[in-house]
Amino acid sequence: MTVALVGAGPGDPGLITVHGLELVRGCDVLVYDRLVSPELVAEAPDDALLVARDGLAQDDVNGLLVELGRDRSVVRLKGGDPFVFGRGGEEALALAGAGVPYEVVPGVSALAAVPAAAGIPLTHRGVAAEVRVLTGRSAGAEPPAPTVVVFMGLESAADVRDRLLADGLDGETPAAIVSRGTRPDQEVVITELARLPEATAEVEAPALLVVGTVVALRDRVQDARLVRATG
Amino acid sequence: MTVALVGAGPGDPGLITVHGLELVRGCDVLVYDRLVSPELVAEAPDDALLVARDGLAQDDVNGLLVELGRDRSVVRLKGGDPFVFGRGGEEALALAGAGVPYEVVPGVSALAAVPAAAGIPLTHRGVAAEVRVLTGRSAGAEPPAPTVVVFMGLESAADVRDRLLADGLDGETPAAIVSRGTRPDQEVVITELARLPEATAEVEAPALLVVGTVVALRDRVQDARLVRATG
Repeated sequence: MTVALVGAGPGDPGLITVHGLELVRGCDVLVYDRLVSPELVAEAPDDALLVARDGLAQDDVNGLLVELGRDRSVVRLKGGDPFVFGRGGEEALALAGAGVPYEVVPGVSALAAVPAAAGIPLTHRGVAAEVRVLTGRSAGAEPPAPTVVVFMGLESAADVRDRLLADGLDGETPAAIVSRGTRPDQEVVITELARLPEATAEVEAPALLVVGTVVALRDRVQDARLVRATG
Repeated sequence: MTVALVGAGPGDPGLITVHGLELVRGCDVLVYDRLVSPELVAEAPDDALLVARDGLAQDDVNGLLVELGRDRSVVRLKGGDPFVFGRGGEEALALAGAGVPYEVVPGVSALAAVPAAAGIPLTHRGVAAEVRVLTGRSAGAEPPAPTVVVFMGLESAADVRDRLLADGLDGETPAAIVSRGTRPDQEVVITELARLPEATAEVEAPALLVVGTVVALRDRVQDARLVRATG
């Protein structure tokens, strides 16, 4: 069978995605976090097995998903987005390593939705054109190399490269260019920061640039990923 | 009547939110961007007025939303999330200024969803604990003060403050603490960077910290905001 790592959104149950809710409504097993709203847990079928994640260590959750995912349809429902401080990558690696098919269904992260709910746009022309995202846990530590995401970066890839090199990133930092992401005709080009301008030459808009060590996780994460049909 | 600024998600039409799709299905007027998938435009009622935004300048879009929003139910459907490089803030300000009620329905931004679709988690324990988001247009320019978002920052607010001051942010930069964001019992505390630790003292988790000049837009943006019922 399969495991879906599904983002539940920032709190309001109406902010789960249409596809995410479909999966919850059809699952055999729902493994959910404390921060997921009870209204969404209640959407699982009456005979579904419900597992509250809290109290389980991350390794145990990984093991549970691998075990149950072998012969049942499992939804792992996580607050916000699975891949934004959600440890979805760790679960994905465990599933990929065990050969259990899985898909990742992104969710509305608190990142922009929570400020929006307080009347605060994250970016605003003439006011803020960049966003930095960190956790309280990392604030006191030595700043690690960040993941950098660039919107509308195709035509100014040389500026982006120069800026990031000037900021101290290594030219060999892995980079990805994702064109028409989440669409059936999505294309991915893998390169490194120093070669970003050449690598973008043949790519069509809309595209997102991603620069950072996380790009190198792709080989292992993508192994068992399902490419889901749109619709 | 009212205007809803709705995020359509990153491309895959299954990634719109449940609440966003409900609004599209019930609108009188749908004003949509080029990047919005045709499947979502087709969800509008048969007798809805469809307006393709492309070809209109931003000021004209703002004027159109104000005009139509006075006596019709308008959905402004934007690719990704309205408040992440989506100019949703400009439309919100125009609506608030004209006294037209509106709501903001966040969407799944390409920010994390597009890397996820390529098998790349934005953050990963031991690999990346921070994310920087910029646009190609801003990369070549003098870096403006960024918006900083901090997850799980309540207990380490002093570390966050010290880190951001060391990075050159001004102690008087406006800051917001949003507890239980998007929930009916959401609470917002407005302060400034230097006072972040004191201001977090009475706030309950989960909470998100936002530091940046955009926080000051709140007074004008929130004016006419609808607080929507959950469900």
